[in-house]
Amino acid sequence: MSGPQAPEPAPDVQGDGDAPTGPRGEDAAAGTQHSQRMLSFSDALLSIIATVMILPVTHTELSPQQQFDKSIQKLLATRIAVYLMTFLIVTVAWAAHTRLFQVVGKIDDTLALLNLACMMTITFLPFTFSLMVTFPEAPLGIFLFCTCVIAIGAVQIGRSAHRRLYRRHILRLVLRGPVLCFLAAGFSLFFYPASYLLLATVIVLPYVSKAASWCRDRLAGPQEPPVHSVELLTFTLQEPLSKERVEAFSDGVYAIVATLLILDICSDNVPDPKDVAGRFHGSLVAALSESGPQFLAYFGSFATVGLLWFAHHSLFLHVRKATQSMGLLNTLSLAFVGGLPLAYQQTSAFARRPHDELERVRVSCAIIFFAGIFQFAMWTTALLHEAETLQPSARFGGREHAFMFAKLALYPCASLLAFASTCFLSRFSTAIFHLMQIAVPFAFLLLRLLVRLALALLRALRGLRPPAQHPEEGPRAPLLPAPC
Amino acid sequence: MSGPQAPEPAPDVQGDGDAPTGPRGEDAAAGTQHSQRMLSFSDALLSIIATVMILPVTHTELSPQQQFDKSIQKLLATRIAVYLMTFLIVTVAWAAHTRLFQVVGKIDDTLALLNLACMMTITFLPFTFSLMVTFPEAPLGIFLFCTCVIAIGAVQIGRSAHRRLYRRHILRLVLRGPVLCFLAAGFSLFFYPASYLLLATVIVLPYVSKAASWCRDRLAGPQEPPVHSVELLTFTLQEPLSKERVEAFSDGVYAIVATLLILDICSDNVPDPKDVAGRFHGSLVAALSESGPQFLAYFGSFATVGLLWFAHHSLFLHVRKATQSMGLLNTLSLAFVGGLPLAYQQTSAFARRPHDELERVRVSCAIIFFAGIFQFAMWTTALLHEAETLQPSARFGGREHAFMFAKLALYPCASLLAFASTCFLSRFSTAIFHLMQIAVPFAFLLLRLLVRLALALLRALRGLRPPAQHPEEGPRAPLLPAPC
Repeated sequence: MSGPQAPEPAPDVQGDGDAPTGPRGEDAAAGTQHSQRMLSFSDALLSIIATVMILPVTHTELSPQQQFDKSIQKLLATRIAVYLMTFLIVTVAWAAHTRLFQVVGKIDDTLALLNLACMMTITFLPFTFSLMVTFPEAPLGIFLFCTCVIAIGAVQIGRSAHRRLYRRHILRLVLRGPVLCFLAAGFSLFFYPASYLLLATVIVLPYVSKAASWCRDRLAGPQEPPVHSVELLTFTLQEPLSKERVEAFSDGVYAIVATLLILDICSDNVPDPKDVAGRFHGSLVAALSESGPQFLAYFGSFATVGLLWFAHHSLFLHVRKATQSMGLLNTLSLAFVGGLPLAYQQTSAFARRPHDELERVRVSCAIIFFAGIFQFAMWTTALLHEAETLQPSARFGGREHAFMFAKLALYPCASLLAFASTCFLSRFSTAIFHLMQIAVPFAFLLLRLLVRLALALLRALRGLRPPAQHPEEGPRAPLLPAPC
Repeated sequence: MSGPQAPEPAPDVQGDGDAPTGPRGEDAAAGTQHSQRMLSFSDALLSIIATVMILPVTHTELSPQQQFDKSIQKLLATRIAVYLMTFLIVTVAWAAHTRLFQVVGKIDDTLALLNLACMMTITFLPFTFSLMVTFPEAPLGIFLFCTCVIAIGAVQIGRSAHRRLYRRHILRLVLRGPVLCFLAAGFSLFFYPASYLLLATVIVLPYVSKAASWCRDRLAGPQEPPVHSVELLTFTLQEPLSKERVEAFSDGVYAIVATLLILDICSDNVPDPKDVAGRFHGSLVAALSESGPQFLAYFGSFATVGLLWFAHHSLFLHVRKATQSMGLLNTLSLAFVGGLPLAYQQTSAFARRPHDELERVRVSCAIIFFAGIFQFAMWTTALLHEAETLQPSARFGGREHAFMFAKLALYPCASLLAFASTCFLSRFSTAIFHLMQIAVPFAFLLLRLLVRLALALLRALRGLRPPAQHPEEGPRAPLLPAPC
């Protein structure tokens, strides 16, 4: 929508003119500092908190005798619900944090300490969620949760109070969550379903308000821009997220998911010395080869997470700015990436419970498919507004367009194929799954070759014309002379 | 040592002249990309892997009946050894990775995938360590470990092979570890103590070679600089680490240590619904107040980690570049920061085992003290070469000098004080510890006020002179006219 190049969200080059004023105002200029490192620390903390609740899900123990009965199903569903709620709420908190710091260019010591207090409150959210899910009807859980959110809001207002110009706008954005939570806390004392409804509102509110403004624009024509439109641009819902922070948050999630798995390996698969001396006659190799499937599953899972990160990384190399719908799709993709340890735990359980491996392979394929398809959808959404969101080389007809398509389509296609083939060849489902895990990394390595072959084939079918050079790519491709 | 401003280690602005050449060389320019995001992802992975092995240490269960006897001591010592070894080896691997990417400015897809393979191998190191410690005399553990390190080395050589100019120098640096490990793998088959000796060499080698070159310089006078000295400067042992990556790695460690604690809270302290209905007559508040000490310990521990991060952050704001001795001290400080969950677990165990709380308080104080004192030592080391390493405002007599001193000395002093007072008032040790945890954050908030008071007091004692303005601060302090 915005014609001019949008201003970069981190105003690092601001002068000292708007240094914070406070009780120690006369010396505050000495204590101000660029906020970049504090933001990356906050991103790391938030991404860990968002994904850490998958651990209780994966550690749900199934003993070999136990059937996958109602009580286990309920426990698992509860824990998955806690994970998803935590993930979404932390993402909302992260988005609010991002918005706030799009206007806070420099920070002093007090702000840094307040930010730490905010982070401390946020790390407590998973506990309040666990409490809410275990005791859904007790008011205490929801009350504690709302107190946490209100505290976060209060801390954030404390941080933003020194920027007079934006105060009203920020207050409206940041207070929305706490006010709703305050209402929810009130309702929790006498009618708890209303509280849950209000909490759900907190999560979906940004998207609802965006949809509402879109509808209003369609019905009544676009509104005139408000005063201070250039400064307020960073607040419009079209561009609420800074690309750097989306990348940092996603990196954190991918990194923590990739490494959560080694913990299980270290704690479960180091054989007991007595066991080795007794059962395996002192042969460590024999003892280790018993947990071979776990190692295979670990490497497969790491490869999956790593390659999904690689696809994400390639995509964001060609992204200029991230719109809010791309942020939503990114969040959904990351939520499924966080579920990959579950897929790992499913496949490593093959050795122990071979009789229901079919369901487990299907669950794994579904998780991988959704993680990949949301990445693909993110790219598709970016293509809808390609002039604003993408670099020229990744647009329709650009040099990287076909490679990008292949990179992002690889995992959805492979997992869909694996899922489909388990329907026909249900006896070989494990073999199919492992084959997919081994084949996909090689496909990524050979991707450029494969895509070039496919393009050449396509061109040959269309009649041996040389490919037309796109005009907007001109200055970036000096290797080939203009073909006309 | 180096007179001119040292070149920034990340050569992001290099031209396309040294784009990688390979089988797909004609198109490689399209696939090259800046390496910054890949590096931060690697930093996140490495810092998580380095600290994750503290979890088995903290999860060493002590049942209330069990005494702290020999077998538990041995188990705990084993796990702490695994943690420290993993931490140090991963730090060495991280330093090698940093060095390698100081010359690799741009990467293509193949390099990114190779980097992922390298990371996958590194994440397997904790497991091989667990194996080595559980079976110290079996050759398999050390053999597997050496295979991992050799694989890492091979992957790193694969990545660096396209830069002809530096190839010999990089090979020497990167191959050192794998070659020693190859020897260790050989020895492990017939004389395993030699293997451990060789592995220890890998960790201390950079420092030994630095000390050796320092001694040689003292004895024989400084050598003439080698050819290509400007390009090779980034390799000299005086400046091996890029400041950004030291920050990113440290951020990762602080973030993961701060959040590891919430996992324990979520899994252990959500009360059982049956328990609540039975023992506490349906009162959730009563059930939660039973684990009050744990919550207090969690918040105290988060505050400690957060404030240590804050001190580190303040220090690095004033650091221009990180020398290798600063890197070593930073690693040692981080190793103790990683031990903080242990301190947390110690203090939260008060409620259950009150009879040996004295030792636990002392262990916690010692861990906090060492984490803080190494940060302080890092600053002292930086002051020795202050012209190269520090910004003017943090040098002797600079505006921030006294604040920095106070910030970095706060935790060592407080923990030392707490430790000392437990010797005299052993009955109130828990109260003293909690008092320290509550008092220190307030001290940080009021630090500027306190330091200004102390300086004013000092000045009054020295005879009411105005403070002399230091000459090198001149251009940065335009507020005051030069006093001459």
